[in-house]
Amino acid sequence: MPPLTSIKTSGDDIEIVNQLLLPHVIEYVQIETVEEAHDAIKTMKIRGAPAIASLAALSLSSQLSRGLKASPPPDYLASTDALKEHVERILDYFFTARPTAVNLGAAIRRLRATLLKSLDANKSTRDICQNLINEGWKVSDEDVGRNKEMSRRGGEWLRQRVREDHAKVEVVNVLTVCNTGSLATSGYGTALGLITYLHESGKLGTAFFTQSAPYHQGSRLTAMELQELKIPSIMICDTMVGSLFQSHVIHGVVVGADRIARNGDTANKIGTYNAAVLAARHNIPFIVVAPTTTIDLDIPDGTHIPIEHRPAIEACLVRGAIYPIQSHEDAKHAVVMITPPGLEGVYNPSFDVTPAELITAIVTENGVAVKNPGMRGFDLSEIA
Amino acid sequence: MPPLTSIKTSGDDIEIVNQLLLPHVIEYVQIETVEEAHDAIKTMKIRGAPAIASLAALSLSSQLSRGLKASPPPDYLASTDALKEHVERILDYFFTARPTAVNLGAAIRRLRATLLKSLDANKSTRDICQNLINEGWKVSDEDVGRNKEMSRRGGEWLRQRVREDHAKVEVVNVLTVCNTGSLATSGYGTALGLITYLHESGKLGTAFFTQSAPYHQGSRLTAMELQELKIPSIMICDTMVGSLFQSHVIHGVVVGADRIARNGDTANKIGTYNAAVLAARHNIPFIVVAPTTTIDLDIPDGTHIPIEHRPAIEACLVRGAIYPIQSHEDAKHAVVMITPPGLEGVYNPSFDVTPAELITAIVTENGVAVKNPGMRGFDLSEIA
Repeated sequence: MPPLTSIKTSGDDIEIVNQLLLPHVIEYVQIETVEEAHDAIKTMKIRGAPAIASLAALSLSSQLSRGLKASPPPDYLASTDALKEHVERILDYFFTARPTAVNLGAAIRRLRATLLKSLDANKSTRDICQNLINEGWKVSDEDVGRNKEMSRRGGEWLRQRVREDHAKVEVVNVLTVCNTGSLATSGYGTALGLITYLHESGKLGTAFFTQSAPYHQGSRLTAMELQELKIPSIMICDTMVGSLFQSHVIHGVVVGADRIARNGDTANKIGTYNAAVLAARHNIPFIVVAPTTTIDLDIPDGTHIPIEHRPAIEACLVRGAIYPIQSHEDAKHAVVMITPPGLEGVYNPSFDVTPAELITAIVTENGVAVKNPGMRGFDLSEIA
Repeated sequence: MPPLTSIKTSGDDIEIVNQLLLPHVIEYVQIETVEEAHDAIKTMKIRGAPAIASLAALSLSSQLSRGLKASPPPDYLASTDALKEHVERILDYFFTARPTAVNLGAAIRRLRATLLKSLDANKSTRDICQNLINEGWKVSDEDVGRNKEMSRRGGEWLRQRVREDHAKVEVVNVLTVCNTGSLATSGYGTALGLITYLHESGKLGTAFFTQSAPYHQGSRLTAMELQELKIPSIMICDTMVGSLFQSHVIHGVVVGADRIARNGDTANKIGTYNAAVLAARHNIPFIVVAPTTTIDLDIPDGTHIPIEHRPAIEACLVRGAIYPIQSHEDAKHAVVMITPPGLEGVYNPSFDVTPAELITAIVTENGVAVKNPGMRGFDLSEIA
């Protein structure tokens, strides 16, 4: 099976794989409108900071492209003012879909800049549309190349670091959390891209990964991607991170990011902070891998990152396939409740903030930032 | 609903509640033989270090009691040698059911001592049986009183400690992991007993509890017990411990124990070590609550505690009720797989060891031990 990708496009058609049903049921969902894209992001049919930015941008491109071909043309093509209002309303609308990840905001800012630049240049409505369509495609297309670049840079940095600490180590063992692979991006992945790079270079020992409750992106999605890529891997429950560090030699913890503040404080999937504190106790390098679009230079530190809280019920439910199952084909998707009915008190943040002091390195497509000796925070100006 | 208890007895009849099906399905299972008791312990129909010790002792009592009434009498009553061999075989057999918890071993040693003492005193086979029957009942009966005593001592100690640190605090917020209540013991509980004591004393704010993957004793059992006791509580996922400490005022983390070494190193449910490391970072007292039978003075430290690893498949499965459900009555129990089929690499230890240096206090029915200043380990001689 080739690696699943989060988004498939063909001309103006967009399909996403419904990540709520993976790994047992592979269901493609047509995204015909920007409203459907917004809904897919909000309900987590698609997730992963880079992937949701790509889908938002692509759905705008697709809508505008269809508009250009439509007869009669849609009302928003009647004037540049109408077009401006239409596009800005869509961009504002996407901004509300999920609050923590900044890549979506970065894509929106980029498309808004394209809009304003085209308006300033007195382009026709058709040319403005075409510029926006091209820019939307670029948001998605550039992601894969960027991921490969940061994966290479991060992988080489980690190998070098491990060689310095343990001269005789030939292969490195890493732990990752959540899902940061093809499904979370437009392809290859960020932290999981780094793991893939190490594997392709023959330098990976074992990739350990957490289940990542409550949505189990680890056991459902990362497990599937690692299987498809034939990467040697071992799953652990979220309760086992400390035990793993006590009992196994782990050379690095590699994670993605949803937003990185100017000082390096990093919001990522809930559980990342647990892993960072445990890694620090065991002197294991903790590495954040994310595109530059994840860095938010407008905020000085992590206290300014809005943390999304999901509905209580979502932490009481687990998705899977009725057991026993023999194969993907006969799998019957089910949702089970793991709490008594009527449980009201639930704390369900989707993200936590890992302070920069616990992070060893931040990797983007532009390079690797490490903290200067004696500093608690990072200088990200070189890699942002 | 009155609090569920793990074991119900009536004369020689023993029933346990099948904890694999809770909280949605309440199924009582008859335990007719020592083999059935062994199987229930091994398959985790009953769990919790004190509860499995009670069931083992009670099932021996029940078997011997039935033997005394049987006509013709069973072969093992033919001679004291036959009885000795029979009882010792059963005790050895229970020893293998689950390796980490020491209470089971303590109960076995206690029954063996009763056997040998009765033999030394040249008692008749009937009298030896009666002594063993009485001792088996005592193992179970004494548990509840002991739990209330340790809960009171631990609760008062924590209140005092919180008053010293935060003069104005009227009620305390605590986090616990796994399940240490009625279902894990013969009644009242250990760490959950302490929480119950605080609640009954009007000194509890909120009890936070983790889900405790992979078996979810927290979301299935602790949630149910706290609901029945009407204790204000909030569930978190295992990934959220650090986030909780960042965002809420937590005055103590209280946990049970499966085995405590001479220096205070404590084996407990997997995930306990994660919570201890995070508590230390946030300067939150970390308190172990367990009966003296949990203390193993024969081993100097935690490296000597055998850690049980459960089958890989158990970490890939989640038990619950098909959602949506309206009530316990119409709940349909199901097992779902949260990994792709064929996932082979799984790390699934049931316990981890928290080093004494991370533990603030160890509470038993005899008192509260705190580390002497400057010491990494405990002196448990006063409370063991």
